[in-house]
Order: sequence, then structure tokens, then C-alpha cells
Amino acid sequence: MSKHQPIGPVEATKVPRFAGLGTFARLPQIDAVPDYDIAVLGVPFDGGTSFRPGARFGPAAVREASRLLRPGYHVELEVTPVEAVQVVDAGDVACTPYDIGKAVEQIEEQALPLLAKDKRVIAVGGDHTIALPMLRAVNKVHGPVALLHFDAHLDTWDTYFDEPITHGTMFRRAFEEGLLIEDKSMHVGIRGPVYDQDDFLRDHEFGFQIIRSTDIDEIGVPAAIAKVRERLGDTPVYLSVDIDVLDPAFAPGTGTPEMGGLHSRELLRLLRGLNGINIVGADVVEVAPAYDHADITSLAAATVVFDMMGLMVNSGHLIREQSELTSQPARV
Amino acid sequence: MSKHQPIGPVEATKVPRFAGLGTFARLPQIDAVPDYDIAVLGVPFDGGTSFRPGARFGPAAVREASRLLRPGYHVELEVTPVEAVQVVDAGDVACTPYDIGKAVEQIEEQALPLLAKDKRVIAVGGDHTIALPMLRAVNKVHGPVALLHFDAHLDTWDTYFDEPITHGTMFRRAFEEGLLIEDKSMHVGIRGPVYDQDDFLRDHEFGFQIIRSTDIDEIGVPAAIAKVRERLGDTPVYLSVDIDVLDPAFAPGTGTPEMGGLHSRELLRLLRGLNGINIVGADVVEVAPAYDHADITSLAAATVVFDMMGLMVNSGHLIREQSELTSQPARV
Amino acid sequence: MSKHQPIGPVEATKVPRFAGLGTFARLPQIDAVPDYDIAVLGVPFDGGTSFRPGARFGPAAVREASRLLRPGYHVELEVTPVEAVQVVDAGDVACTPYDIGKAVEQIEEQALPLLAKDKRVIAVGGDHTIALPMLRAVNKVHGPVALLHFDAHLDTWDTYFDEPITHGTMFRRAFEEGLLIEDKSMHVGIRGPVYDQDDFLRDHEFGFQIIRSTDIDEIGVPAAIAKVRERLGDTPVYLSVDIDVLDPAFAPGTGTPEMGGLHSRELLRLLRGLNGINIVGADVVEVAPAYDHADITSLAAATVVFDMMGLMVNSGHLIREQSELTSQPARV
Amino acid sequence: MSKHQPIGPVEATKVPRFAGLGTFARLPQIDAVPDYDIAVLGVPFDGGTSFRPGARFGPAAVREASRLLRPGYHVELEVTPVEAVQVVDAGDVACTPYDIGKAVEQIEEQALPLLAKDKRVIAVGGDHTIALPMLRAVNKVHGPVALLHFDAHLDTWDTYFDEPITHGTMFRRAFEEGLLIEDKSMHVGIRGPVYDQDDFLRDHEFGFQIIRSTDIDEIGVPAAIAKVRERLGDTPVYLSVDIDVLDPAFAPGTGTPEMGGLHSRELLRLLRGLNGINIVGADVVEVAPAYDHADITSLAAATVVFDMMGLMVNSGHLIREQSELTSQPARV
Amino acid sequence: MSKHQPIGPVEATKVPRFAGLGTFARLPQIDAVPDYDIAVLGVPFDGGTSFRPGARFGPAAVREASRLLRPGYHVELEVTPVEAVQVVDAGDVACTPYDIGKAVEQIEEQALPLLAKDKRVIAVGGDHTIALPMLRAVNKVHGPVALLHFDAHLDTWDTYFDEPITHGTMFRRAFEEGLLIEDKSMHVGIRGPVYDQDDFLRDHEFGFQIIRSTDIDEIGVPAAIAKVRERLGDTPVYLSVDIDVLDPAFAPGTGTPEMGGLHSRELLRLLRGLNGINIVGADVVEVAPAYDHADITSLAAATVVFDMMGLMVNSGHLIREQSELTSQPARV
Amino acid sequence: MSKHQPIGPVEATKVPRFAGLGTFARLPQIDAVPDYDIAVLGVPFDGGTSFRPGARFGPAAVREASRLLRPGYHVELEVTPVEAVQVVDAGDVACTPYDIGKAVEQIEEQALPLLAKDKRVIAVGGDHTIALPMLRAVNKVHGPVALLHFDAHLDTWDTYFDEPITHGTMFRRAFEEGLLIEDKSMHVGIRGPVYDQDDFLRDHEFGFQIIRSTDIDEIGVPAAIAKVRERLGDTPVYLSVDIDVLDPAFAPGTGTPEMGGLHSRELLRLLRGLNGINIVGADVVEVAPAYDHADITSLAAATVVFDMMGLMVNSGHLIREQSELTSQPARV
Repeated sequence: MSKHQPIGPVEATKVPRFAGLGTFARLPQIDAVPDYDIAVLGVPFDGGTSFRPGARFGPAAVREASRLLRPGYHVELEVTPVEAVQVVDAGDVACTPYDIGKAVEQIEEQALPLLAKDKRVIAVGGDHTIALPMLRAVNKVHGPVALLHFDAHLDTWDTYFDEPITHGTMFRRAFEEGLLIEDKSMHVGIRGPVYDQDDFLRDHEFGFQIIRSTDIDEIGVPAAIAKVRERLGDTPVYLSVDIDVLDPAFAPGTGTPEMGGLHSRELLRLLRGLNGINIVGADVVEVAPAYDHADITSLAAATVVFDMMGLMVNSGHLIREQSELTSQPARV
Repeated sequence: MSKHQPIGPVEATKVPRFAGLGTFARLPQIDAVPDYDIAVLGVPFDGGTSFRPGARFGPAAVREASRLLRPGYHVELEVTPVEAVQVVDAGDVACTPYDIGKAVEQIEEQALPLLAKDKRVIAVGGDHTIALPMLRAVNKVHGPVALLHFDAHLDTWDTYFDEPITHGTMFRRAFEEGLLIEDKSMHVGIRGPVYDQDDFLRDHEFGFQIIRSTDIDEIGVPAAIAKVRERLGDTPVYLSVDIDVLDPAFAPGTGTPEMGGLHSRELLRLLRGLNGINIVGADVVEVAPAYDHADITSLAAATVVFDMMGLMVNSGHLIREQSELTSQPARV
Repeated sequence: MSKHQPIGPVEATKVPRFAGLGTFARLPQIDAVPDYDIAVLGVPFDGGTSFRPGARFGPAAVREASRLLRPGYHVELEVTPVEAVQVVDAGDVACTPYDIGKAVEQIEEQALPLLAKDKRVIAVGGDHTIALPMLRAVNKVHGPVALLHFDAHLDTWDTYFDEPITHGTMFRRAFEEGLLIEDKSMHVGIRGPVYDQDDFLRDHEFGFQIIRSTDIDEIGVPAAIAKVRERLGDTPVYLSVDIDVLDPAFAPGTGTPEMGGLHSRELLRLLRGLNGINIVGADVVEVAPAYDHADITSLAAATVVFDMMGLMVNSGHLIREQSELTSQPARV
Repeated sequence: MSKHQPIGPVEATKVPRFAGLGTFARLPQIDAVPDYDIAVLGVPFDGGTSFRPGARFGPAAVREASRLLRPGYHVELEVTPVEAVQVVDAGDVACTPYDIGKAVEQIEEQALPLLAKDKRVIAVGGDHTIALPMLRAVNKVHGPVALLHFDAHLDTWDTYFDEPITHGTMFRRAFEEGLLIEDKSMHVGIRGPVYDQDDFLRDHEFGFQIIRSTDIDEIGVPAAIAKVRERLGDTPVYLSVDIDVLDPAFAPGTGTPEMGGLHSRELLRLLRGLNGINIVGADVVEVAPAYDHADITSLAAATVVFDMMGLMVNSGHLIREQSELTSQPARV
Repeated sequence: MSKHQPIGPVEATKVPRFAGLGTFARLPQIDAVPDYDIAVLGVPFDGGTSFRPGARFGPAAVREASRLLRPGYHVELEVTPVEAVQVVDAGDVACTPYDIGKAVEQIEEQALPLLAKDKRVIAVGGDHTIALPMLRAVNKVHGPVALLHFDAHLDTWDTYFDEPITHGTMFRRAFEEGLLIEDKSMHVGIRGPVYDQDDFLRDHEFGFQIIRSTDIDEIGVPAAIAKVRERLGDTPVYLSVDIDVLDPAFAPGTGTPEMGGLHSRELLRLLRGLNGINIVGADVVEVAPAYDHADITSLAAATVVFDMMGLMVNSGHLIREQSELTSQPARV
Repeated sequence: MSKHQPIGPVEATKVPRFAGLGTFARLPQIDAVPDYDIAVLGVPFDGGTSFRPGARFGPAAVREASRLLRPGYHVELEVTPVEAVQVVDAGDVACTPYDIGKAVEQIEEQALPLLAKDKRVIAVGGDHTIALPMLRAVNKVHGPVALLHFDAHLDTWDTYFDEPITHGTMFRRAFEEGLLIEDKSMHVGIRGPVYDQDDFLRDHEFGFQIIRSTDIDEIGVPAAIAKVRERLGDTPVYLSVDIDVLDPAFAPGTGTPEMGGLHSRELLRLLRGLNGINIVGADVVEVAPAYDHADITSLAAATVVFDMMGLMVNSGHLIREQSELTSQPARV
């Protein structure tokens, strides 16, 4: 864990939030600080997309939208993540846009060195395919994890066009590779029809439980939180948020929107209900900026990343030792 | 009822959903199958519009958005409509854009041959004017029906600019013509002011009850469903969904948006609450694509059409006799 | 109070709503009637904006969107404001876009003559800075008021870039100037992190209570209304609605959107819960049309203005004496 | 002709151009001045449209865009129209959106009183159908005229869907009614294929000559101007500009865009080449704002209206007698 | 060559152009006619894109925009292609979005059967990668061809990310495979910097000549046409139009826009200057609808396809024998 | 002048252009290299805007669009700027959005240290106001300069709302302060009316000559270049490009668009015609991204910046001594 006093974001009352090269939440670039606890890592790959492409521009758009965050004290989580630990922007993975297999290797290779027992990465996609190399990298540090998956879709189909790794199939691969703890994983927000009723049987065999978005109508958010917490217990968790878990009204800028999704306050409340859970890795994916409007989807994703920071700090695995304040100003 | 094994949509794992001439949900065109049970019929007429025109492009836009549907097993309705019965795309009505009276005749003339005691049409508008010729055609097959009407507006005004048939007056005409069973019809989602308080009195005289969108705040969706079911009983129902029943956040692409509407999950839950009701005709209207964003309005309309299919199958009036599977592939 | 029969909006069944020079809700211009009770006043100033500018185009956009209002009988408030009193469009304040201090003076100077004990102004911004000169003007007529403030942000920060009057600091200035009754003011809809936890302490010292948008999740709208009413009692109230109190899905066209806001029905229900409160001044601010889509933000703002009219009439301070009907037609 | 000193537009260095109820170019409303020479008249009718509707919002959008005009000294035409004569905004025609025949009558009825031997109307559409009632009204004052018609399309087809008066047929009707001087009319900017080669023969029989947009490539703008001037001579001219004469890059916001159109500088140069021609009536039509971007189409239309003012003044038929300056300020 | 009387597009004066399932220019689907001469084939593949993806939606968007074509008599080419020969819409190639190599094979396999000595295919992309399989298929029928290539970019780079076949490298592959006649090919419209000055040397070695868009400024369009015609002579030509050859003002909806491109009239004039050239295959590629506005890019592409039809007919290789008129109506 | 081997942009064939924190053209940040010759400096200030604000987001948008540049060999200028000299991204000026006077000081203070006899700054606005502090800083290094000004507007008005420094008045201030060499400055692209004919007289008194955009129609680009070169001679030149010099079709994303502007190829040809001129400072201003579409305006601005680099290198004042190649890779 980083021993230095964290360097925080550029001060918004001195440098306008619209100014400067926009790192995530105007936090320091990774090489501008001696050490870090949480790294935000862009993964601009969308080669696994089945419908609207463009999530390759997700990291750039989420960074721009994150200018709007005031990344200070998180009222609901009662923490100031960027003071509690050192958070950095680790830039983007450089991977080929042309070859899924190769890209998945490159992502894992570049994400792994950023991880450690006491270092977390929050990946910003890119399409959901990137969750597989992230899970592989996390697995090398933490072993199998429970997957907590917010999405409109199961993403446990087998293949599309004979391709085993796509944005609709990668969690089946993850299960097959032993990256997921059996009977601990969970989908939240699933909706819409399935091609085949057996999809649910198979999904269940892979150890998933499902809270459909229509279940939220019936049981409400607090009960849903209780279900999730009961299932996850204190296992290490990988938290994967496909932004299409939100209704298209809240997240139009995505590749496979589905009517009837979560509202933004429901998603935030669900996430904040995870306070104390041991989140060892996370991603926010499927922001496709060409379909966004007024950056509302990117802003939702950026807000989710900020909540993830709070959850990671509150998990208790990243508590910093106090040290003197450095005076080094963050760069514009 | 069709005796052949239904031909379903083009397979999405073989032919990308963005490929091919886009029939509704990539289902067969009407002349590509020997018979059908449910026909989706575009009615690209918007000559009755009072504010933003453009619903003439509704059928084309809803078809394009319907590529995103995975029209398989409907989890909440527990049915796979396109396997249970033969669903087809019947193309569009060809009618004049210039003369309301003539267009209304053309719509009725072209819709009527598609209807039968055991054949249903789901009309995709077009502005709400098209509900009148649809009701006239349905009346010729089923006699008077109860109207279940989701909308921000009553649409029972008398005339606009001396015109008796417009998108705000056609349900008064329908009542006057005896197309509606007295004291069975219902508006859901009404909101906003009225020009005159008497509008409600007159609406009541035409046999309507109203569940305002603010009523949903008070009583909740389940109670609203109960009210609707109690009123409709087992009468044959014409289901008319003006997409502006949704809040503008969920359906910006419409002609007369009104703040404070239903959320997409509320609308879907209300619709699914109708399971078992005898729906003999239906429409989804007022999608004005030029005002839409990222196709979210069109997608909402397409999803509603898919739910209507499930409701029609589940009404029990279209149960197919089992027959051998045909191997004829749907066309790209 | 105006003694003449009010002149209402242009009749929509005779003159299409898309026609004519668009005053607010197609109501008369202020100099076309002998007297008035409520004036809608545009304040196209956005020089106090910290992020996305453009609220200077707010008045024009809200007027255009208000064509969609049917400003008749308000069902929930049980009043027809434009018949009960004379409502007019007072045009726009003419103020410099370049100098906050000077603009704030110009706004106060031009708003003050429109106010009286029995005359109300509803200001349409512009950025939130304009609330300060409005409060100063209201103060000269009514003395200190309780502030009921719907917003994602507190707006009680001290300075930005050494500037004391901006759209994030003006309510601290208002408190310091004695414009606000102590311990009566209230923020509703606040969300997101704060730069510093002390922001809340200071805000509390300025006499504010807060209902966060997440509090609505816990206690529901009716309890929130009760809290507000209890606090406001029968003091004169200035009602200030920053449109960003709505979630970005409902109000994308604003300068500093924040995920997790109120839904449009929640806002309307909260406002209607104020029925009977003595509202002596009001504003709707921060509509930035360049970021809007299909005018949904402008329409929300216009609808809020219409509700404000109803609340002002229902407060009982503007009851007109009956007089004979004038036949003067409003102009196109 | 008006004998008073003209009242000009609101002063932009005192009242920001984005402020105030937006009359055309912020000129006085017609009833705010004692007399006028040129009236800008909105005609928000689009019932004759064959493809993308929405030109009903043209007048409102062109007025908003006209805020950007600095309606002072026209350098190329060497005239300051709003000082030379009194120009006013005459508001919009109120006509039914539902019945072409009735609307065409209403337009003629409301335009005719605004015309006189020394008073001009510039109509802002609306779809091109409105040119017919304008020509009928002009005919009653000036007798037959030469038509100078800028458009991508001939608009001399016979009927669409048996409708004789539409936005593609009205100039055939005008010819048949004797509104056009034989062998004097001219189309400029025509392009694209025709349904039938005979279309040109018939068009020729109606007395038209054609300069295709591809002809401009060959002969250049100056030669085109020479051809037009030679043909028009000193006959009274009705100038009709369908904004789709511009290439879609310059005018995306229109109903039937056609690739390969005029560039904005070409159109302006052609118009300015008409200096001295006796223009007795004019229209700018087919601005469909829902398809516009950043108001560039509306701005082009507003600029064309301003050029038309200059041409009308320079025709020498509207020269004002000098009179003392009035001090009446224009309204905000 | 087809011996039957061609079936043309749906009649626009009977069926509105916005109605019906939109085949290209509302022409018959390939299986609705006995034979054909020219087939328009969608190739919705964009896996070779290096920047903005989304050309997979190109075929659907170009079809929708083609509703605006009036595919009758082409004035400049003096031909009515859809009467002279049978033109059909052949639907879309079904290919994997995930694997460039496999997709390229699938495209060739599905395009080849549509080709013959006297049958032409016009491919609508998709990204420019699709030109390689099209050239391979054309080669099997016609042997090596001259490539006439309209583009902002050379597309003769070697590899990107070690990938040999992408939208920037496929013409080098085509040359290496012997698909192109040496010293006959030509780029038109090239602009912008190159990564390396040697790019031009290599391009020249592959037998290309270049007319930069800046050359058009110097020599004009007629001289450019002369250069092209001189070089192509009477060899069989494959005509490939990357829509980004147009300036971004004319074609914003594309993947790698480049300032300073051709204007739409220049492109059309250049194409029409090819009259008589023996075009044996053609494509229009790189329409990325998510970045388009008001469909102007799609409309430009559709117009280019229509011109290609005229050029193919005028090449003299597809002259139909006269036969009696069929009365079979085209479908809606 | 920098003695080290320049570090160039990130390699596009290894790291996708959409990846990584986007410095201008993916060039090094200023503190990542030992020295530099040309610095691109963002100036996100738009407080001097009179109509549409939003140019504060210009630097961020131009940087994002500059990902599309392939900043290698400039064919027309025959130079590879990023190899010839060290070009860097110097980030953004941090200045108050609230006070024009203070902001102008801050801009000058932060720009001045970046300048030297052999170091150039290209400022990316922001609104045109920023040209004044840039000219003041340049003046401190180079003394008075000739101003070559591309714009739709003169920007030599006196005051707006009593404000002496705005985006329409700053060049009068510059002249009054002696920053401009008398009788050497020039406006290119001016168009539209002026408030007062005397504006031109005064402009002339300040030592300006004008080439209107309509002059280009008459004399052509080469003659315009000759005029400019003759006037500038070999004086040091400050080159200021208001992006609204382009027609709105080419640059919709700007604050005060004006019909009839330059085409993108004309602007580039004019700029390239300046080859050899001694450009000692430059800016590109008035990109307002909220009004842009598909980034075409930002891309135009980025391209102009790249051309400016080439012009600065070719001026002969920045020729580097050859040195060994460094192997330091640029960062993602």
C-alpha cells in the first residue's frame, strides 16, 4: 500500500473543471506519483460487440464526463476516497482492435502488473469482453472470486459465429476456466426475452443466481441488497457493471440497450448497499459514446467508478497509514 | 389458425442482427409463409398530428429498432410467441398523406383482410388517428370492444380546426360509431391539464374510466392492474398504446410529449398484468423518429409490440395444433 | 390586483400551437393587457456558470417548449390559473453578459417594478445566479423569506475564482444579506459528493435543512412533503427550482448534471404537495438548451412554471374579483 | 408607402441578441408601428409535404436563427434595408394543419391584406405548397408575374395521390390559373433524376427554363445570373427559394434533400446578382428544423430573407420620403 | 442478361416513399424477379475499422436514405437504369463480425454467385475492407481490373497491429494477389499527411497514380476526368468509393473523416465523367450512420449507387433485348 | 531551440488512435521532453462571447479530434513538423471564467513564459478574446506584428455593454495598444452586414485591409494569396483563425456562425499559400463543441493547427540542428 500522502484531483475552485488534460476525475497520472492504491484503467476495446460498436471510445468519454465529478466526500459511503488512498489514472491498455484473442491477452498482460494484494484496478471499457482478461488477471492475484454482475443480459451464452470470447459469452468462459467461485455469482438487472429457455438452466449450472429487473418491482431494492449480501458473504468479489443495466432513458449510449432497466438511483442504491464487501476488482463497460446524449451515459459510468472507489476503500483492505501532507500540486 | 410449424426470426448467432432487410424482429414477410396468426402491420400516416409531425416514419424506425429484440422466450409471460404461433411482418399500409378521410378508409380497407376471428393484427403507427380505422376493421370481425388506452391524453376531444378525425378526437368518433362497448373502456397514464374541466365529464359520458399517471403514485402498479382487469373482465379488448404514455425521458421521440409520464418498467408491468385478457386488436402509435435519440423510443415501441404478441398468444384464442418442424430458413 | 377579466392563451383549436410569436404558453405580452397578477420573466444570463454554459438561451427555449402546454384546468391543483388571474409574459431582462455584478444589478432593477404585494414574478433563467437579484427584489416587497430550493447542489459555497456571486455561491450571499428567514430554508434533491465535509456544517449554519435525493428512496415523497410543509409553515416562500434536481435522463439540457436525481413525477408530486403554501417569488433555472434533446428539459421547466402559477393562485393571495368577460382576442 | 421614420431592430450592443421575444431579426411587430413597407410573414403549414414533414416549425426556427443576423448595412447590395424602409414581423398565418384546400384559402386570405402596390410580403414557410396562395394574393395586386424559382425539384408535377395541390405540384396549378407570365419563369438549381423524361417537356410547356445545378459547374455563376436577368427583364417577379436548392451539407434541415446542390455562397451570389429586379413577392420555404443541425439551415433561410429585403428596397419601388427620426424604442 | 421486362421501383405517387419495407430505391428483392442485371448487395462488416466503427449499419442506413431517390431518368447520364435493365436488391451478406479473415471469405463466397460476365454487383459497405473480397470475386469472373479509387486515404499501407487485411491495407493485398492490372489504378481525392513520405513511393510501386484533392483546386474537375479516362482506357474497371472522399461537411457520417475533401457536386461530376467506362464491379463504403446527421451521408452514398447503375448500363455491356411489359406490380 | 531529437506522436499502428490520454495529436506533454520548439496551448475561456457560449470546451474537443490527424509528412508544405522540431502539448491555461479582465491577465501570464525568439505557441481557444493576451505576450518577445486574421467578422468594434475587451472588440484594443504594425494587418473571409457602414472606415483607420468571402468569388484563391503575401511581406505575423471563417456547413460548432463562408479547401489553400511567411504566434478560436456535429468543426480546427506547425517550421526560424535519435517512446 502506498505510504505517501495521496495527491488528489486538481482543485476545481482554482482550475476550471473544463480545463486541462482530462485524467479521470482530474486525478494524477500513474507516473506522477510514487505509488498508488487504486488505478483507473481504460480498456478501449470493442471487438467483441454484437450490435452497436463504439465502446472503444468509452474510456475517453468517461474521462471527459468525469470532469463533472466533485470527487470529495462521499456522503452515502461516508468516505473521501481520494484522501483515504492514492487513486490514479493509469491510462489505457494498448491492444489491437482486430483480433479478440490477441487483444484479450494484451489486456491481461497490461492489467496484471497494476494489480497486487493491496492494489485495485477499476477497468473502464470497452465492451464487456474485457471482463474476461480482467478476471484472469485478478485470478492470478486473488484466486477465484464471486462475480457480482449488473447487466441487462446474462452474458453466459456459448458462442456467436463460432467465436468463444465475445461480449455475450465471456462469463461462461470465466466459469469454465475456474475463475469464479461456484455458487457465489449473481446477475442483477437481467431483463428481456432469451433466445432459448435453457439459457437460464445453463446459467444456473454455471453457479449464477439472478435478480431480474422485474424482481426489483416486486421485492424492492433493500431486499435485493439483502439477497446479494447474503450470497456474496465475505468472499472476494469482482464487480462488473454493464452500463446497459440502466434503462435506455438513463444510458442511451450503449451497444445493446434493453427497455425496462434500472433507474440511476436504484443502481446507486444497490451499489452503496455493498458497503463493506471485499471488492478486489471491478469494471464499468459498454459505454458507446456515439449513441450518448449530453454525456449522460458517460457521466453515469464515471459516477459508478467513483462509487467503486469508495467501496474499495471501505472494504478495509486499503487503509493507509497516516503520513505528512505533500505539497506537490497536481498538474493541469 | 395456421396449421404449419411457425417460421421464426432469422437466427442471430448466424446472421448478425444488424444485417438483412429488416422486417419486424426479423420475422418472415407475410407472403413468405403459407399462413399466419399474428401480423405486424405498419401504418405510416401522420396527417392527424397537431404538433410535431413525423410519425409517418414510425413503422420504419420501429422495424429497425426491433433488430435489437431477441424474440424468444418471454420470461414474464412464460411464452415464446414466435414458436407458439406464426407471426409475420405484413408490410405497410399504402395510404395518402394528404387527406385524412381518404387515408382512414385506405387503412381500414387494407387492414380488414388481414383480420379474422383467429388472426390478429398489431398496427404500428403512424399517429393515433390510425386507431379509428383499426377499430372499424376490428369491429367488423369482433363487434364492439372494450378499449384499453395507454396515453398522456384523452383523445376524446370533439374537433380541431373543424376536423372530426384527428389524433386527439378519434376515440370520440369511435364511441359515437358504436365501436366501443359502453362502460368498459379505460385510459391509463393520462396527465397534464385539460383545456376545459368538462372534458372529463364528456369523456366519462363516452364510457371511459381514467387512471391518471399521478394515480399510479398513490395506488401503485398492482392496484392499477387490478382496476383494469376488473373493468375489462373477459370482453374482447382493443389495446392502444400511445408511446407518449411514457415520460419524455423514456420516449422523447413523439409528437406531443408530456412531463410526468410512466416509466418503462411501469408500462411493461402494467401490460404484463393483462396476461389472459382477450386482446383482439392492438396498436402502438406516435413514434416520431426525428425527435428520438439512440432509438430509445422506437425500441420501447418494438418491445411493447413483442409483449402484445405474448399477450395475444396467452389469451388462449390462438393455440396452434402441433405440427412437424419445417426446415425452411428465414431469409436474410 | 388586476380587476379585468383575464385574457388567456391563444386558442389551440383555432390557431395551431406551433404558430405565432411564442410568448410563454401563448399568453398575452405584458403590454397587451391593462394589468396582471403573475408575470413570467425571462432572465437570459449565464455568466455565473462553472461548467457548461448556455442557460442564456433558457428563456427562449422554455417559451418554445411551452407551446406544448395546454394551460387550462390543472387537475391535481384543481385550478385554472390563466382564468383565475391574469398571467402575462413580461419578456426578458436586458442585462450584460460580461459582468456578473452589473448584470445582477440590472436584473434586480428590471424585476423589482414587476413585483408588488399582490403581483408575482416567475423568473425563467438563465443560470442560478439570477436567484440572488430575484431574492433581493422580493425582499424589498416582502421582507425576508424562506427559501425552498430544489437542486442537485447546495449552492452555498463561498467563492469560485475569488468571485462572490456565481451559480454555486449565491445562496450564501442571500443568507449573509439577510434575505432569508433563519431556520426556515430547505434544499431538496441534493446529491453527489461534496468537496469538503464541512460544506454541510456551513450550510446548516446558514439555516438550511437538506432532503437528499437518497432520502427520498428511504422515506418516500409523502414524508418528504410533510417535512417541507412543517418547516415552511405559513412563512412567505421563495421557490427556486434548478432543473438539475431532475436526473439527467429527465433533464439532460443543463449545465452541471448529476446522476441519481429526482424523476419528473417525483418533482411534480413534491411541488403539488406545496398546495396552499404562500409562494411570493419563484424561479426555474439552469436549462441549457444546447445540451437538451427533443426539448424534454425545456418542457419540464415549462411545466414547472405552470405548476408554480397554480400554487401562487391557490395560495389565496391573488383571488380576483369577478368581472365581465372581455372579448379581446389574444394575438397570434 | 410608410411616411414615418422606420423603427429598426433592437440594438444588439444594449440588449443581447439572445434576449427578448424573438421577432424576425428583432424587428418591430406589425402592430407596434404605424405603417410598414415590407412584412415578414410566417406560414407554418406543412400539410403538402411528401417525405419528411416538420416545416410547420420553420417560421419559429427561422425567427430564432434570425437573432444572429446583424440587419444593418448590406455590403454587397449597398443598402441598409431596415433604415431605408419600415420592415416588420407580421406574425404567422393561422391555418388548419389538416386540410390543404382550406389552408391554402386561409393563407391567401391572411396574406392579401398585407400586400399593396408598394408593400411587400416575404413569406417564411412552411412547405412549398404555400407558394400557391402567395402567388394568388400577389396576382390580385400585381397581376401575373414571372416566377424565379430556386429549388432542387421542378414542383410542376401533376398530382400526388390524386391531390392537385401539394409541395410538388403547386407551380403547375399556378401556371394553369394564369398566375405566371408565359415564357418568363425559371428554375435554378434543379438536380437529380426525374420519374419520367416527359416531366421536362411538360415543364417547358408551362413556360419554364431550367438552370440545373450541374449547369453551374459548366457555365459558372456570372453566366447564370446573366441568363436569369435576360429572361426576367423588367417584369414583376415572384422569388421563391426552396432551401433544398442548397446542398444537404448547407441545408440538412429540409424535407426532401438532394445531393449535389448549390453552395451557400453560390446562392447568395445568384441572389445578389438580381439587384434591381422588381421583386413583388417572395418566399423561403421547406426549412424542417427537426432535421437541422446547429440551426445552419434556419440561419441560411434567415439570411436569404435579409437579402430579399435588400433586393426589394433596391428595386426602386419602395423608396421612402425622408421624415424626422422617431425616438420610440423597439421592444425587447 | 435478363430477358424479362424489368420490374421497377414502387411507384411514389401511389405508395408514399416513406412506406413499405425499404429495399434499395424500393426496387424488387432479388427473389421477386426471374433474373437481374445489376444487384445491390449490402456488406455489413466493419471489423477492419481503425477509428470510428459503425459502418456495419451502413447498408441499412443507405437503404433507408435511398427512399429519397427518384430512380427514374438520369439527366446527366441520359439513361433510366431501372428501365434499361433489371436492378434488384440482393439483401446483405451474412458474415461474422468477429474475424476479419473468416468474414472476408464469407463475403467473397456470397458475392461470387451473384456475378457473371453480364451481371454486376454494387456492394454497399461496411468498411473498406470489403473491397478485397469483392475484388477477389470480380477477379474470378473478369480477371485483373483497373482500380479507380475515390478516397481521402491511400489504403495501401502494409499492416496495422500485424493484421494484413484491414480498411487501410486491403489494396496492397489486392495488388500483391494480382487482382489489379499494373499501372492502371488510380486514387482520387487523397489528402492529409502521411505517416511516412515513403508511403507514396510504395503506393506508386503498386501501380497507382494519385489525384489529390488539392490537385482539383489547381487543375479543375474536367482535367481530372481527362486524366482518369486516359489512364483507364477501355480496361475493365472496379470502382471503389469511400464516402470519406467527400469533405466532412458533405459526409460527416464516416469513420475517418479528413478535412479538405471533395464537394458533392465535384464527386458527381467526376463520376459522370466516367460515362462509357467499362465498370465491372463497384462499392460504396464507410458510411457510419451513428455519426451522420439528417442522413446526408447515407443519401450521398445512395446517390452514388444510383449513378453507378447508370454508368454500368451506359458501358454497353448490359443492353437488354426489348420484351413485352410485365404487369407485375412491385411490392410495398 | 531544442537540441534534442524530437519525440513524436504515439505510433498509430501500435497504439490505436482512440486509446490513451489524448494530448494534441498524441504528442508529448510539455514536461515529458527536455525542450521544445512549438507548444500547443489550450485557452479554455469563453467569457467574451456575445451569442452562443461554449468555446471553453474548445481545447478538450480539438484535442479529441486531433486523434484523427496523422501528423506525419505534410504533402503540400513538404515538411514533417513533428520530426523537424519538437512539438508539445502545453496543457491549458488556468483562468477564471468570471472576469474578463482578470482572465486576460492570467492568459498573458501563463502564455508568456512559453514564448521565446525561437519558441512558438499555437493557442487553441476559447473565444476570440484570447487573441488579445496572446498578442500582448507575443509583443513582449517580438514587438509589434502584422495581424493576419481569418474570420467572418471584423472584431474591431468598440465596446459591447460598455465592455472594452470582448470577442468582437479585442483587435481594436490591440491596435490601440500598439501591438499591431500599422498598415500591415488583414482580414480574410469577412461577410454579412455591419451594424453601421462606418465600421469599415474605422477598421481601415486601424490599418486593416479586407478580403471579403465574396471577393474570393470574384478573384479566386491564388489572387487572394498574392494580396496577402504582398501586404505581409517579411514582417513577423500573428495568424489568428476564427473557425467561423468557414461556412456553417464546414464549421457548425461555433458561436456566431454566418452563412456564406469559406470552404475547407479554400481555407487550407489560403493557409498553405503562406508558406515561408514568418509566423511568430497563432491561434485557432471559437470552436463551440456543443454545437458541433461528428466533431467536424473540431477536426477542422485541429487540421489548421497542424498546418500552422508546418508553416512555423517552414518559416526558417526554427531549423533544428541534427542530433542522434532518442529511443524514448512516447507515452500512451
